[in-house]
Amino acid sequence: MSAGPDIQGRDVVTLDTFSGEEIRHITARARALKQEPLGSPLAGRSLAMVFFDPSLRTRASFSIAFGSLGGTVIDLVAGRDLWPLEMHEGAVMDSLADEHVRDAVRVLSEYADIIAIRALARGGDWAQARRDTVIVSFQKHATVPIFNMESVLDHPCQALGDALTVEDALGGETRGKRVALTWTYHPKARPLAVPHGVGMMAAKLGMDLTVARPEGYDFDPALQRTMEHAAQRSGGSLDFVDDPAAAVENADIVYAASWGSPSLHANPDEERALRDRHRSWQVTPELMGRTATGHFMHAMPIRRNVEAADAVVDGPSSLVIEQAANRLHVQRALFREVLGV
Amino acid sequence: MSAGPDIQGRDVVTLDTFSGEEIRHITARARALKQEPLGSPLAGRSLAMVFFDPSLRTRASFSIAFGSLGGTVIDLVAGRDLWPLEMHEGAVMDSLADEHVRDAVRVLSEYADIIAIRALARGGDWAQARRDTVIVSFQKHATVPIFNMESVLDHPCQALGDALTVEDALGGETRGKRVALTWTYHPKARPLAVPHGVGMMAAKLGMDLTVARPEGYDFDPALQRTMEHAAQRSGGSLDFVDDPAAAVENADIVYAASWGSPSLHANPDEERALRDRHRSWQVTPELMGRTATGHFMHAMPIRRNVEAADAVVDGPSSLVIEQAANRLHVQRALFREVLGV
Amino acid sequence: MSAGPDIQGRDVVTLDTFSGEEIRHITARARALKQEPLGSPLAGRSLAMVFFDPSLRTRASFSIAFGSLGGTVIDLVAGRDLWPLEMHEGAVMDSLADEHVRDAVRVLSEYADIIAIRALARGGDWAQARRDTVIVSFQKHATVPIFNMESVLDHPCQALGDALTVEDALGGETRGKRVALTWTYHPKARPLAVPHGVGMMAAKLGMDLTVARPEGYDFDPALQRTMEHAAQRSGGSLDFVDDPAAAVENADIVYAASWGSPSLHANPDEERALRDRHRSWQVTPELMGRTATGHFMHAMPIRRNVEAADAVVDGPSSLVIEQAANRLHVQRALFREVLGV
Repeated sequence: MSAGPDIQGRDVVTLDTFSGEEIRHITARARALKQEPLGSPLAGRSLAMVFFDPSLRTRASFSIAFGSLGGTVIDLVAGRDLWPLEMHEGAVMDSLADEHVRDAVRVLSEYADIIAIRALARGGDWAQARRDTVIVSFQKHATVPIFNMESVLDHPCQALGDALTVEDALGGETRGKRVALTWTYHPKARPLAVPHGVGMMAAKLGMDLTVARPEGYDFDPALQRTMEHAAQRSGGSLDFVDDPAAAVENADIVYAASWGSPSLHANPDEERALRDRHRSWQVTPELMGRTATGHFMHAMPIRRNVEAADAVVDGPSSLVIEQAANRLHVQRALFREVLGV
Repeated sequence: MSAGPDIQGRDVVTLDTFSGEEIRHITARARALKQEPLGSPLAGRSLAMVFFDPSLRTRASFSIAFGSLGGTVIDLVAGRDLWPLEMHEGAVMDSLADEHVRDAVRVLSEYADIIAIRALARGGDWAQARRDTVIVSFQKHATVPIFNMESVLDHPCQALGDALTVEDALGGETRGKRVALTWTYHPKARPLAVPHGVGMMAAKLGMDLTVARPEGYDFDPALQRTMEHAAQRSGGSLDFVDDPAAAVENADIVYAASWGSPSLHANPDEERALRDRHRSWQVTPELMGRTATGHFMHAMPIRRNVEAADAVVDGPSSLVIEQAANRLHVQRALFREVLGV
Repeated sequence: MSAGPDIQGRDVVTLDTFSGEEIRHITARARALKQEPLGSPLAGRSLAMVFFDPSLRTRASFSIAFGSLGGTVIDLVAGRDLWPLEMHEGAVMDSLADEHVRDAVRVLSEYADIIAIRALARGGDWAQARRDTVIVSFQKHATVPIFNMESVLDHPCQALGDALTVEDALGGETRGKRVALTWTYHPKARPLAVPHGVGMMAAKLGMDLTVARPEGYDFDPALQRTMEHAAQRSGGSLDFVDDPAAAVENADIVYAASWGSPSLHANPDEERALRDRHRSWQVTPELMGRTATGHFMHAMPIRRNVEAADAVVDGPSSLVIEQAANRLHVQRALFREVLGV
């Protein structure tokens, strides 16, 4: 139906499986669909959302995007609507798990045209958590496309909404533009999925990304190498610094996010102690002043006057509402592209 | 689209912002729509329902009204689907709240065409509770119409369903008709939203309302003054008595409801002790017999044989099922009026 | 609309109220609808699902079947969306129950075109549990068709999906075909609804059913007599044995299921002790080997390598995914038949 790259039938689990051209194709379709009547292209189609963790923006944007195009949505909460799932192949299931993930996913594949999953980390070693067992198991067994609604490692639909927002704010061209992703203090250890998504988006779109973070708050090492390779191919770059002021100098975009230390993932008390030493990491009007014309972004929920000052979040350079709004527009484009309608 | 008053784009938070003419316009539209095919006037539109408290009739009537007209509904439960919300402007959000109500509501406004909220009191002083902080905050920050699905102070969609029921039962004319609202015993301290809604409806429709309640069970004083002013303008009246038998004498409508004492709102044990002294406040066939031709109403859920005898609830003069059914019809009319379709 | 038996307006609570001809009519319609565009025959119609117990396959297949045909679905969870319900007529409701089932069901009947209920046993005597009070109360008070999404006694929509699966697997003719229903070990005492449904399906479709179970694991005696009478009329038969190997000999279908002992329903510790003595009851490739061409069925969720070996569940003779998929197709046919569209 579309003349661009063929996205039909694909999983949307990480931007790593999409080229820069494909990402630009999706954002272009999202932009075009904003001007068109919605119609009912998804009539008779169904989306099964499975939440292992809570969600507002993602749940709302997925539900309304799919439903407003005529489709049917079911919202399943693990532990309430799903039986406890066995994840291991060949297991003798005489303990707590009532159903094997293989069976639950194969059955959902018979009912739904797309299965979407949110499953974050459950503590423990980062080496284990980063395997993203839930979404990987769903991908392995599903016979329909799988959408990632945020996993341990990635949040590609947020990243695609961000890509649309960045393109619109910067006049369409992203290559050579400068993004400063700055870590912020947060009372909780937040997932790495959003910062990873920002890194992957910048790398795919040929942007120069500087990440400012305290020592101990690097990305997942393997994913960072993936981003570096992607940046090399796209003409972008990826650097890590420990000074936010330096990072935001002349940035076109200042993206604030908080995340826990992957190296201390198994030691939450130590992680908290380390994080608490960095309470001063907040995006202030002074910090934004170093960018000249930089825009402020955050994926929300945002801790106001902790992660960023009210004056920044509500200021004229803030894109936070556009970002959230673009989740809906990108989602409509993605559903139509993946289902080929 | 409609030739009557312009309701498009309005909040539906209290009947106080609607004139008697506007209320009659809505009930007339509801009555007319019962005879028409439903069609899909809300195709592509979406409703976000946010529940801080549980709901059966309201959840079901809102969902089915919106969905059966072709729209998409999302059902969000606070504490499960929403992050704990900060309500104070300028707060330094380093404690429990993960998101500011301002941000949650602005984002939902980007996704949904209408936001509906149920948020009852959480104990404490009545002076504080009556501020209805949640729904007032949603109104303040939303850029789309807000519907009240029951707040501390009001329940306007229930009241509009009741208005349709009363008009139909009394042959269309409400002016000069007599409503007796009688307090009933209930093992729990129930919200004041329903009785307030009855008071506001009667005052706007020019009815003579007599409220029978034990000492200590008055309405919110400020809202009572609002009702008295509205009744003066409409040619109605509002009186409080402490004898149900006197109140129902020659009443056209006997409306049973239970509510907690606002003056003892911060002292639940004292409130319970006072309430327990009034276990005899029940609508019996004998009480109904004093009305000659009076109809029985209750917003449900009803404690049978505590608030009212089975013989009353199931008797020929009972309108309780019509009331509940009219919630759906009024809701369809309201959604179409507010969205202008 | 259909030339076959008149199913419009009927409750779907047990297959006992449907003739073999009617069951074949429903499965034939399901088979035919698979080939047709879905359209929107349920536009403007609504389904209220009420869950007293969790569900995956049933929730998903009901929701998607109704929604994908253009209808609106609400998903109500007892204890969260419904008030605690009083079940006794004439009760003085001064205790825990906030609403009488009579009122909740009459109101839902005003909003929804179909009400579907899942309500399993809550322990206690089997003589009490088998009364299926919740679904019987819903049937008594509803003015719209009631669907059983699994009750203490029965699971007719699962049984109809199984009927479609069996017909397709056996080339269309069920009369005289042999079904072996074999009890399997399970760490929990599972409901009797699925095995009862298998028994009722086989009896209505003229099949020869042999049930292999350990002593103490009989069906509900009254329901067993009902099945025996139905089998006599249809030319089928019903036998109970205690040796799975004998039961599966030459079987066309091996249906695995686990269930708790009804006679020990009030004594869960004793029941567990008895059940634990039968851990060897598992469907293995060796057992399946005795059937020559037999198919394997299970209603899921299945405890792999406890109830049946992976090699059986995933083997070429397994129908478990077809069974689950057929839930959706049968459900679409049922909704259209019952609503007459």
